[in-house]
Amino acid sequence: MQLFKKFSMKNNLIKKKNSEKLIINNYLKKLNLGKRTTYNFENDGAYIEKNNKRLVVTTDSISENIDFFKNDSPKSIANKIITINLSDLCAMGVYPYTYTLNLFLPDYIDKRWLTVFTNELLRLQKKYKFYLLGGDLSKSDKLILTSTFFGYSKKIIAPQNNMDPDNDIWITGNIGDSFIGLQILRKKINIKNRILKKYFLNKYYYPKPQILGPKIINFIQSMKDISDGFITDLNKMLNNTFGAQIFFNKLPFSSNMNKLIKSNKIIKSDIINNGDDYELIIISKKINRYKIQKLAKIYKIKITRVGKITKNKLILDDSNNLINNVGYYNHFS
Amino acid sequence: MQLFKKFSMKNNLIKKKNSEKLIINNYLKKLNLGKRTTYNFENDGAYIEKNNKRLVVTTDSISENIDFFKNDSPKSIANKIITINLSDLCAMGVYPYTYTLNLFLPDYIDKRWLTVFTNELLRLQKKYKFYLLGGDLSKSDKLILTSTFFGYSKKIIAPQNNMDPDNDIWITGNIGDSFIGLQILRKKINIKNRILKKYFLNKYYYPKPQILGPKIINFIQSMKDISDGFITDLNKMLNNTFGAQIFFNKLPFSSNMNKLIKSNKIIKSDIINNGDDYELIIISKKINRYKIQKLAKIYKIKITRVGKITKNKLILDDSNNLINNVGYYNHFS
Repeated sequence: MQLFKKFSMKNNLIKKKNSEKLIINNYLKKLNLGKRTTYNFENDGAYIEKNNKRLVVTTDSISENIDFFKNDSPKSIANKIITINLSDLCAMGVYPYTYTLNLFLPDYIDKRWLTVFTNELLRLQKKYKFYLLGGDLSKSDKLILTSTFFGYSKKIIAPQNNMDPDNDIWITGNIGDSFIGLQILRKKINIKNRILKKYFLNKYYYPKPQILGPKIINFIQSMKDISDGFITDLNKMLNNTFGAQIFFNKLPFSSNMNKLIKSNKIIKSDIINNGDDYELIIISKKINRYKIQKLAKIYKIKITRVGKITKNKLILDDSNNLINNVGYYNHFS
Repeated sequence: MQLFKKFSMKNNLIKKKNSEKLIINNYLKKLNLGKRTTYNFENDGAYIEKNNKRLVVTTDSISENIDFFKNDSPKSIANKIITINLSDLCAMGVYPYTYTLNLFLPDYIDKRWLTVFTNELLRLQKKYKFYLLGGDLSKSDKLILTSTFFGYSKKIIAPQNNMDPDNDIWITGNIGDSFIGLQILRKKINIKNRILKKYFLNKYYYPKPQILGPKIINFIQSMKDISDGFITDLNKMLNNTFGAQIFFNKLPFSSNMNKLIKSNKIIKSDIINNGDDYELIIISKKINRYKIQKLAKIYKIKITRVGKITKNKLILDDSNNLINNVGYYNHFS
């Protein structure tokens, strides 16, 4: 980078020559929160300074038509690019420190879009305490966003595949709500009740990172965020080395989700195999069961013990029926 | 990230479900050079560990039809995504340590493409000594690549805007060759001599980062790589605070470029206002003139003193004629 270089737009919003400078000055500069190590986005690089700690890095991208729809609000898109990355950091037990942003902007991006988008970024930055280090701007046919997040770790970084038989399996929050929102948009599920419909759409449009991760890092074996459905992500954690028994009736669903299940609008196996809820799957030793429950209670975060690790490499329910992983969450279907 | 997650391809190369895993295993894993902090690309994040130093970060993206053409060889594209980022790091006086890669791959990307592309990355990694920390894979209509580079700095990071009147201005290597290559492809310049044509095309297709930066960091005031033409980048350095007198006849051109100038195929003012040569503009105190020349000689890097900083905010030639900056290098023209 020049942090935010190489940009010009051919639209009516901004004259070609100064479009980059204009976007940086009017929309992006507020996001560096005055940190001098960003060179106020006027330099080709920036730096991060902190005492002798491990720097944890995650990076992820979202694209129009794949991870969001063209007409989704800039507020929703801001939430998605932040959450997909922040969620990965939290699942490693790490708080965010700073991030970079690479924006590929099509012609339809206008002042209003940039204002709403960057104001929402700013709100999230203040809420979760991180600043924008830099990035770059490019022109594109489709809106694409890449972000790289950085967090410092004192000692322990939560692994994804560390476990022993009989370890507890937990899920934070509820699962599946975001998937229902997506199915409504895809017209695969029809919900007439406006309030119910809005609830699920909001869960899809405004995902939240689960910040319990860094708070319980000392008491867990493994963590991972749910970005491709509970079973798919659990499978990744089990890594062909272990299996799991799932207490199927204990799986945490929202009361609104339970209404859909009761009215046969959706079946549980669809919910557990799909969706990006950004809740955490946590694997921990039995001995830490009480501590984890207590910490979750202190921070007012719902946590549910949903199963245990087994030697046997299958994922089974309480009655030893195989829980089928219908496969990788397909971002293109 | 999962370092490289969220990918599936709908092409004949790879079955949907396993395409991500296949690309990671067959092409990308070799690039982590066995570093355990990458979790072998099987984790949603990775980390960087090194003693109490500043971590310098640069990020930049390239897109099909903007920064390269669709049919450009994967070898050329590998050189471009590495060089644009590595060049920024070197201009800050920093050696590369590691990088992340976000790939947006269209359907036409096949095994051969991936093999050539990643083998070239591996060659560059070995040459400049850095490894792949992680990244992510997405499907896209167009080929887009984003990379974030990390380097550790001992103490000093070269600024871009630190200078005083009478400071020397230097350029490494030669300028303009890459721009001629681009003009040939755009059919704006016609060169019949095959060897000459190939020379310029190669300079466009295979840019090299200028690695003198970290070696002379202790003897300079400011550095910047030339990514948008010499005058445009010099202007950024001057930052509306200083001006420059340019020794117009000392500007460093290749002997092949001098042939074009002699035969009126190109005029000098076009060359200095355009092109991404990834050579460095260096600003230094007179007192360090000898040291800089000596270091360049030791490392066998051509360096030319091309001007000096002035109080007056204009860029003038030897005869005090204004050297016009025709404006921001337009990546879309």
